[in-house]
Amino acid sequence: MAFPFGWNILHMASPPIERTVYIVSDSTGITAETFSHSVLSQFEEVHFRPVRLPFIDTVEKAREVAARINRNALETGVPPIVFSTLVNPASMECVRNANGIFLDLFGTFVGHIEQALGLKSSHSIGRSHMAANSEQYRNRIDAINFSLAHDDGQFITQLDQADVILVGVSRCGKTPTSLYLAMQYAIKAANFPLTPDDFERGTLPSTVAPHRGKLFGLSIQPERLAEVRNERRPNSKYAKLEQCRYEVAEAERMMRREGISWLSTTTKSIEEIATTVMQEVGLDRSN
Amino acid sequence: MAFPFGWNILHMASPPIERTVYIVSDSTGITAETFSHSVLSQFEEVHFRPVRLPFIDTVEKAREVAARINRNALETGVPPIVFSTLVNPASMECVRNANGIFLDLFGTFVGHIEQALGLKSSHSIGRSHMAANSEQYRNRIDAINFSLAHDDGQFITQLDQADVILVGVSRCGKTPTSLYLAMQYAIKAANFPLTPDDFERGTLPSTVAPHRGKLFGLSIQPERLAEVRNERRPNSKYAKLEQCRYEVAEAERMMRREGISWLSTTTKSIEEIATTVMQEVGLDRSN
Repeated sequence: MAFPFGWNILHMASPPIERTVYIVSDSTGITAETFSHSVLSQFEEVHFRPVRLPFIDTVEKAREVAARINRNALETGVPPIVFSTLVNPASMECVRNANGIFLDLFGTFVGHIEQALGLKSSHSIGRSHMAANSEQYRNRIDAINFSLAHDDGQFITQLDQADVILVGVSRCGKTPTSLYLAMQYAIKAANFPLTPDDFERGTLPSTVAPHRGKLFGLSIQPERLAEVRNERRPNSKYAKLEQCRYEVAEAERMMRREGISWLSTTTKSIEEIATTVMQEVGLDRSN
Repeated sequence: MAFPFGWNILHMASPPIERTVYIVSDSTGITAETFSHSVLSQFEEVHFRPVRLPFIDTVEKAREVAARINRNALETGVPPIVFSTLVNPASMECVRNANGIFLDLFGTFVGHIEQALGLKSSHSIGRSHMAANSEQYRNRIDAINFSLAHDDGQFITQLDQADVILVGVSRCGKTPTSLYLAMQYAIKAANFPLTPDDFERGTLPSTVAPHRGKLFGLSIQPERLAEVRNERRPNSKYAKLEQCRYEVAEAERMMRREGISWLSTTTKSIEEIATTVMQEVGLDRSN
């Protein structure tokens, strides 16, 4: 029996490709980890095994990392990929000289920027996260506490302090988005449910009505909503597709009537929802 | 009056350096934004003004970005810095040809990796965040819901499903750490307060005692704790330094006696606390 041309050969010629990826950092390595994930997701045929090695803040620890890289190369027969944000020159040299594919995340760009600005960098480390006790950091903690306290329509005073108030039917994605906005951007994001009671009354909940300018809506496809609600309360009226269709249609009608912008969360990640909310509400601190 | 040598001259010779930084992405640009912040924090004498330009997913939008870069260069008299994660070749060429210092975040490393692996990349975009509806994404949402439901000792059933249970005195950082672990790593992190009642009784809260293997402690300097509590409840007994000293000493004594590892959150960012917890509890999914 003959296979369609190419299929068989291709299949035989490519054993599964595996590669260990070390993310080596003086600090947490979280930024480098996320970044490396983005870069590596462009090689779909390879199965990467990421290993984050944080707080490599002495040459001794860097030597251990180098030894680990060498062991991996020996055991797997191929050099692992090494994403480094090490800044200390001695530590970096240690790791660079190991048997890996060494990618110097900071150095690569710091060099370009030094040239362009005609300045030397400070070669300091671990500055990527807000230091504890800084004002920025306090704002972030305050925002997290605010978003938690104002989750799902709780604690309805102080809504005037909110940067944004997300509205939408239960389980459309308000809570994770609020927390993400607070955690990542120190944005005080409250959220408030739109419920069948509101739809029967035909008006916005009286608590949020005075803050119309801060309202932003989240919506969702009824089919997806039914799935999500079914995981939470299987076989309830609340999770029925018919109920979900009713609530979504009513919520969108109300938002349209009240002139509230909204977006559909159905296929979006938390990061995408948060970014769109920031753009639409003009909260992008960087603009 | 003479200034110490150099001081005056240095001061006169350096006008404040300002530079606009555009973060241009097909997707949210959040990873690139955090990354660029790390890189640029190594140039302390420059005041950077970051502008994130997300969802640049058409050549038309890329042309608008290029025009914006050119306007900025004209208005400020210096080319802005451009961090790009654009993957679409036509869009990238548009932005690359504008009058900026162009840094191709993905391309730079994708090229190296292609060479090292002997493979071509897929040039696909926006893969950095977990897609909605994927299993990973559902795990993440589940973890956020879990951590919210099990915040501050609420909802004490299902603790057996927790990946980790953070314990410590009120306001030592348990809540933000739990939420971060859930949001970033889909870790089900519960948290439970250690209170004066527990110290008087001299035993772990009975709810968490059966889960000793999952407990991890957070502690904090009493002086810092008093500051944090004073912001929340000014001039209360709860916020008094003496009270904070008592609670912290008792909590640490209890954790020592019960063999619970802990770390001090006093000078650490949420990311640093979360990373250390993951290392200590063996939750680093990548290990």
